[in-house]
Amino acid sequence: MQDLMVAIDGGGSTCRAAIADRSGRILGRATTGPANIVSAPQEARANIVAATQAVLAEAGLADCSLSQLPALLGLAGVNTSTPDTLAEPPLPFARTVFVDDVEIAFEGAIGEGDGLIAIFGTGSVFMSRRGGKVTKAGGWGFVSGDQASGARLGQALIEQTLLAHDGLRAQSGLSRALLGEYGDDPGRLVAFATAAAPVDFARLAPRLFKAADEGDGLALAILTEACGFIDRALDHFGWGDCPRLCLMGGLAPLYRPRLAARHRDRLSEPRADALTGAVAMARRHFHPAAAPPRP
Amino acid sequence: MQDLMVAIDGGGSTCRAAIADRSGRILGRATTGPANIVSAPQEARANIVAATQAVLAEAGLADCSLSQLPALLGLAGVNTSTPDTLAEPPLPFARTVFVDDVEIAFEGAIGEGDGLIAIFGTGSVFMSRRGGKVTKAGGWGFVSGDQASGARLGQALIEQTLLAHDGLRAQSGLSRALLGEYGDDPGRLVAFATAAAPVDFARLAPRLFKAADEGDGLALAILTEACGFIDRALDHFGWGDCPRLCLMGGLAPLYRPRLAARHRDRLSEPRADALTGAVAMARRHFHPAAAPPRP
Repeated sequence: MQDLMVAIDGGGSTCRAAIADRSGRILGRATTGPANIVSAPQEARANIVAATQAVLAEAGLADCSLSQLPALLGLAGVNTSTPDTLAEPPLPFARTVFVDDVEIAFEGAIGEGDGLIAIFGTGSVFMSRRGGKVTKAGGWGFVSGDQASGARLGQALIEQTLLAHDGLRAQSGLSRALLGEYGDDPGRLVAFATAAAPVDFARLAPRLFKAADEGDGLALAILTEACGFIDRALDHFGWGDCPRLCLMGGLAPLYRPRLAARHRDRLSEPRADALTGAVAMARRHFHPAAAPPRP
Repeated sequence: MQDLMVAIDGGGSTCRAAIADRSGRILGRATTGPANIVSAPQEARANIVAATQAVLAEAGLADCSLSQLPALLGLAGVNTSTPDTLAEPPLPFARTVFVDDVEIAFEGAIGEGDGLIAIFGTGSVFMSRRGGKVTKAGGWGFVSGDQASGARLGQALIEQTLLAHDGLRAQSGLSRALLGEYGDDPGRLVAFATAAAPVDFARLAPRLFKAADEGDGLALAILTEACGFIDRALDHFGWGDCPRLCLMGGLAPLYRPRLAARHRDRLSEPRADALTGAVAMARRHFHPAAAPPRP
């Protein structure tokens, strides 16, 4: 049992856990709710533990104590928030290794070679590895960046809806519908926004894409700006002959058809997801001598 | 003593208190720290009480109990946050009346006639009265709006500084200096932003104007966008022959020379400040039969 290990992919909307053997073979997966270590560390901690317990149960290992297992946690916000927020009380694993969530996503999508990924979920971040040199951009969180994230899209929808209410921009079907859900009372919409966590804003993002598909002017304006940001960021990384460019995260399939053709035409499917990447990193970390599983 | 009354002007950066007699004659003023009832209601409550006690002491009325005095409070955020946040435990006044801070500012600047004001402090808001009809825009707070506020300017400075760090926009002297204050560690700057209240962001605004005056490209870009927003909002209210258009709030003198000439050339000085407006509203409310003081 001491050869098993836990891998975690924790972000603003969900926490995914896998259990794997020493070769990295995945024995089970489970998903719980948000694991935002910046805005809700206690909830993140609870969801990390719950996801691990769920995957142990699924793999028929419910009698295995977390204190016997090493864990590698790929978490959004590790780049800015030391995992101190999760360290007291300590997580119940035998050993705990924290890495940035973009690194496990890159490991899953690209592996150990060169490439470029962009993640669009509750947050947003870019990472490239070119000739072995790693460069990141974004991932600075809801307050300071994440310009193409679901959370910022949802915030922009609320902000533009209030501007439309005030007459400072044109109304749209989406802005009328959203305000209608708050009894046409902008104060109630603001009260929601003031109390909302990033994931609460991010839940508004899919309907923004849907409305844009239907021609909603306000939704189109917000997405045009977000897609412009993404296109410029990908231009910044340059690298036209990048061997592998992958979009990841829950909003990736929604953004994909809206990006500039010069980027859209060179997109690849990720080889595997971020949780698979976390398992691969866990294997290298905890069992460096073990051979990886045959693909 | 029962003919005295308290007036409060509470915003994101400061809380001002005045004590006045039944005719509205001001006997003293005092200022304490932030009174943000949305993001920090307990601090707001403490600063409201402290400002009142300070003004009583200044007026030689230190033996006067707050429980004997009626108070009119003009507070930012009353438009979106019911004053419930201040009501438990109740404020210690004999009677407590809450109004939106833009209303006391309008009363101070314009009085009972027609006009248009725009307030730029920690938050931002517009209010017009035209033919007696009141229209407001903005004032929806840091998360949902306040597009030309000090808080949003400071947030934009941090966001653009991080984009510059990532290479997604040009660096500037200001972005380098700001990041330098955090040891050139973007994670430390993000940690500041994640924990910051609106007033903490707003404290960055004056240096943004100063840097723009010195030609800093990043500062100019942020202010060009904010001034464009203000110009468009003033255009929205139209009303070229508005009898009185006043900018108010701590950032008003900084914005003034940067607005479009069509607005800049029609600005008036406010007749009085928001606290004086709060006193006038308090007098009408608590002593409607009393004559106002001779100007």
